[in-house]
Amino acid sequence: MAEYEVRFDCHPEPIRVPAGTLLVEVAQQAGIEIQQPCGGQGRCGRCAVKVESGQVRRRSVLRLSKSDIDAGYALACQTVVEGDASIVVPPPEAIQRRLTTDHIAPEAALPEGYDASHAQSVRRVAIQLTPPSMDDQTDDWGRLCATFRRETGLELLNASLDQIRQLGATLRSSDWHVALTFDTGPKGEARLIRAQPADQAADAPLWGLAIDIGTTTVTVWMVDLLTGQVMRQAGEYNRQIARGEDVISRIIYAGKGNGAAELREMVLGSINGLIQTACERTQLATDDIVKATISGNSTMMVLLLGIPADSIRLEPFITPINHLPRLSAIDVGLAMNPAGIVDPLPGVASYVGADITAGVLASELRTSPELTLFIDVGTNGEIVLGSSEWLVTCACSAGPAFEGAGVVHGMRADTGAIEEVWIDGGSYEPACRVIGNVAPRGICGSGLISLVAEMFLTGLLDKGGNINETLGNPRVRRGDYGPEYVIAWAAESEGEEDIVIARVDIDNLLRAKAAIYAGFNVLADSVGVPLETVERVLIGGSFGKYINVEKAVHIGLLPDMPWERFHFLGNTSVKGAYLALIDSAARDEIAEIASAMTYIELSADNTFYEAFTSALFLPHTDISRFPSVKAAMA
Amino acid sequence: MAEYEVRFDCHPEPIRVPAGTLLVEVAQQAGIEIQQPCGGQGRCGRCAVKVESGQVRRRSVLRLSKSDIDAGYALACQTVVEGDASIVVPPPEAIQRRLTTDHIAPEAALPEGYDASHAQSVRRVAIQLTPPSMDDQTDDWGRLCATFRRETGLELLNASLDQIRQLGATLRSSDWHVALTFDTGPKGEARLIRAQPADQAADAPLWGLAIDIGTTTVTVWMVDLLTGQVMRQAGEYNRQIARGEDVISRIIYAGKGNGAAELREMVLGSINGLIQTACERTQLATDDIVKATISGNSTMMVLLLGIPADSIRLEPFITPINHLPRLSAIDVGLAMNPAGIVDPLPGVASYVGADITAGVLASELRTSPELTLFIDVGTNGEIVLGSSEWLVTCACSAGPAFEGAGVVHGMRADTGAIEEVWIDGGSYEPACRVIGNVAPRGICGSGLISLVAEMFLTGLLDKGGNINETLGNPRVRRGDYGPEYVIAWAAESEGEEDIVIARVDIDNLLRAKAAIYAGFNVLADSVGVPLETVERVLIGGSFGKYINVEKAVHIGLLPDMPWERFHFLGNTSVKGAYLALIDSAARDEIAEIASAMTYIELSADNTFYEAFTSALFLPHTDISRFPSVKAAMA
Repeated sequence: MAEYEVRFDCHPEPIRVPAGTLLVEVAQQAGIEIQQPCGGQGRCGRCAVKVESGQVRRRSVLRLSKSDIDAGYALACQTVVEGDASIVVPPPEAIQRRLTTDHIAPEAALPEGYDASHAQSVRRVAIQLTPPSMDDQTDDWGRLCATFRRETGLELLNASLDQIRQLGATLRSSDWHVALTFDTGPKGEARLIRAQPADQAADAPLWGLAIDIGTTTVTVWMVDLLTGQVMRQAGEYNRQIARGEDVISRIIYAGKGNGAAELREMVLGSINGLIQTACERTQLATDDIVKATISGNSTMMVLLLGIPADSIRLEPFITPINHLPRLSAIDVGLAMNPAGIVDPLPGVASYVGADITAGVLASELRTSPELTLFIDVGTNGEIVLGSSEWLVTCACSAGPAFEGAGVVHGMRADTGAIEEVWIDGGSYEPACRVIGNVAPRGICGSGLISLVAEMFLTGLLDKGGNINETLGNPRVRRGDYGPEYVIAWAAESEGEEDIVIARVDIDNLLRAKAAIYAGFNVLADSVGVPLETVERVLIGGSFGKYINVEKAVHIGLLPDMPWERFHFLGNTSVKGAYLALIDSAARDEIAEIASAMTYIELSADNTFYEAFTSALFLPHTDISRFPSVKAAMA
Repeated sequence: MAEYEVRFDCHPEPIRVPAGTLLVEVAQQAGIEIQQPCGGQGRCGRCAVKVESGQVRRRSVLRLSKSDIDAGYALACQTVVEGDASIVVPPPEAIQRRLTTDHIAPEAALPEGYDASHAQSVRRVAIQLTPPSMDDQTDDWGRLCATFRRETGLELLNASLDQIRQLGATLRSSDWHVALTFDTGPKGEARLIRAQPADQAADAPLWGLAIDIGTTTVTVWMVDLLTGQVMRQAGEYNRQIARGEDVISRIIYAGKGNGAAELREMVLGSINGLIQTACERTQLATDDIVKATISGNSTMMVLLLGIPADSIRLEPFITPINHLPRLSAIDVGLAMNPAGIVDPLPGVASYVGADITAGVLASELRTSPELTLFIDVGTNGEIVLGSSEWLVTCACSAGPAFEGAGVVHGMRADTGAIEEVWIDGGSYEPACRVIGNVAPRGICGSGLISLVAEMFLTGLLDKGGNINETLGNPRVRRGDYGPEYVIAWAAESEGEEDIVIARVDIDNLLRAKAAIYAGFNVLADSVGVPLETVERVLIGGSFGKYINVEKAVHIGLLPDMPWERFHFLGNTSVKGAYLALIDSAARDEIAEIASAMTYIELSADNTFYEAFTSALFLPHTDISRFPSVKAAMA
């Protein structure tokens, strides 16, 4: 067998190994410590190394993004030597940072072949007007429109009263040389956003915002509209959280007294806070922000706009409006140019909103004839099944368990949250990865999935989710909420008590995963295709950012399929809003997607309840659906 | 010669007279007193009687409106007997009232053959929506649009955010049976004004406003949009008068500190006060007023809308915008449905505004190929010359003399104003008609014209406007402002001093009339037609309501033509706004008129100054232009 030389940056001598040796094994020979918290299963991503040169084969790249791979990263536990190679072992902190913060970088890349001058609906042109005289007393607005028409071939639409009020001073102070910023519509009509002296506008920036309003998190991308490039990304918790964790409690709160106005101010506070901070840091004037696209679920959208949301909550669950008109920033209340255009993206139904239509666009589901499943699990779980030909969608009331809420020691995926757990099959001792690498404070959604999967595979849980109290292990005990398992003793943790998972938490999680898996089944049944024939599973949303597919399959949340069919796309909602912002055709496609989707109401679907109850087990009543889990158990 | 019997209501016996006898002579025979302040010249209208039956011939009907004539009125001094007749002599008060207040009644008549269902752009339809269900979860707005499209064949345009906010509650409270009020545009698109429960709308009124904002007076007509009929007319002084009598002083005031906002509030106060009073009296809710058209000169228009007006005043005299977009009532600030449509009519130039384009429409100038002069003399004098084929226009800075301002004892045409004067050629004693039939307080514009004409014809004034101080008459004397003529002694008047006209007042008036007459000349010259060939003179505006043509010709203000060529149209500006309100085609025509008019800037026209100086005499340097005046002098 051929032998090759592998060089490490942190080791003086090359190591000689036979072809096919795993990089972790080569490192071991060199005495180099590479962390493998998941035991070398390619699940945790902590063993990532950088292949500077040479030939290797990556068996799995599950935890790596496309840009990671382009940069040469490989999972040492999943990569074999196929030639001489030079390897850099990054410090553990660098890996940690990549895994938790750099994940959205590739999402923000400019689409291939993008040309702002064709795709962008916002334009700015400088025009020189002939000054008025006693021989030419044309009115200011008429003069502007005539010159604009001559220069651009476009009709200038009626401006707002405020714009008309300001026009005369702008024309005169600029010596009749003005720059007009406008948005072009589908019929080639131009809607004036801003008129300013041309010399002020010459090198001035022209910004747009892609905004995603999640129930939990608000994300804002600031975009240079002249190039289409994302210049800044920012996110923070949706301040509405203080008035309810999920959409239902928000709707109820909005229905009381001044609740709607308060919620509106809260989410505006979140968005505008992000905008203002970004503007301060980049020395940008909010007046230079001239357009925003908004994505988000239907409840978030109507709460932002001050539209009553009650009918979303009450049977038959009707959303006030799917296709909203383009609005003015001043009417919406965003911290940008008051005459700027705010474009709320269209939704499909009360529980399938613009976040999903934008997500479908961003996921590129429609670019392929392959049968594809798109899921976005946040506070709710929305699922789309389809291809370039057709789309069906549904929403599952997963509840907030996957966001760490409704669980005794649950928390959001923030510093101190246990996000992955491995349990030793002999001692039942857990090993945890904690966000921020600090002492744990609680456990987040991905940690819960990981934990339940490990408990199930190690026999701490049975099929029904019951904790095995017969093991005589000190970590299994009776607590305030019945049987529980101690994940971290108080001494190891940030707080003063043990971090545990109780039987009630497990039930919560089982209901959440069963709802989603049942959703897959109902969608597949509705179009008469077996779930196993799905060729791609596209996972959007914050949920997909950290999830361990293998463990999600183990608990029966995701269908049991080869790993390569799963693709993690991060925040597809904001990415879709971004594409709609920089590309008129993308915006049109989101509207088409919204119109093309067939929505299936699960609560009106007889097959749903059956599928749900079948899925309330680990991994499922019908174990034959989960061959890899069956194999792992054996 | 044939003899006929004439019966009077106030006389027991019929009077037998030969054919051709004047009615005043018949009355004299019967011992019936009929007032003739103008000396039987058919100029004052005070001898009006009602012909109940029988045959008479009216030689002149100058002071009578068409509806007066239809009602049988005739001027006793200008009407001859041509058969047996029955005559009613109205009490003097009734005549007075007809002359001063009922003048606008015929203007407000519904156009012949008017059909609201075809002409009216505002419509209201009741539609029954299928309520949503678990099987049909279409969003509220989508459901409304689809049903509306099915029922009317029209596309419902994007509604405002406020309307979307209210929609859900309206749909549900009405059991999905709603009435939609909307305005249809030229492309058959419908702009939603109001959605309300159908049962509330069934018998509800649907009102519109035709508003004319004059520099001096604000006029509001309330119109039933379902029939097109004018239901109420109201007017009051434009409260802006307190900040300047003419447009120039208003513009200057608007440019200082908070001036613009103050002026805006003032005029809104005038308009909204009229609306609110009318609503209270008719038990109408302002929400039922859904559309308004606005006419007025360019300065009044931009001051109402908060648009800076400076450029109107400063050379080269540019108005900010001629063709304004349709606005929402809430943005304008009118006391009507906040989502109601406000349609500011288009103007032509800084000093030829919507009042003139609307006036040209209302005057029906364009319906005839006859060469026609349209004049509207208020604070400024605007003139249009043209026919169905073409239109030229100019504006003369007449100054406010014709509104009684800038004259020592001048006042507006209000109670106590002397509005007509006759001077005895022997004693130089004046006889006055006073508005409201009270002791005089001052003299208004029409009174001034009348006075100067009488003074000229009786020799109190020479051609140059100099007062003849050689007559030895006690009414001619030297006062604070030089030579003056006493119109009313303090004892006869309301105030404590004599009411006089001074030389400076006469100069003022001469400049004003010269500017207007010169305007006629420049317009006629600009298109190469002699002024004498004008076939119709249409007189709009408050000026035209009371003016005595003969006296206006005597002073050289109006061209010397047969009386029958003059037509008094009253407030053509508000009438044009009314027609635009009730008829889409009329609204389109006003836009066409605005585009078709060629504007001639007099201050840039070399011929104007020459024409002006020639016209600074009584009646004119060239007396051959005024043959009837020459005859009267002889």
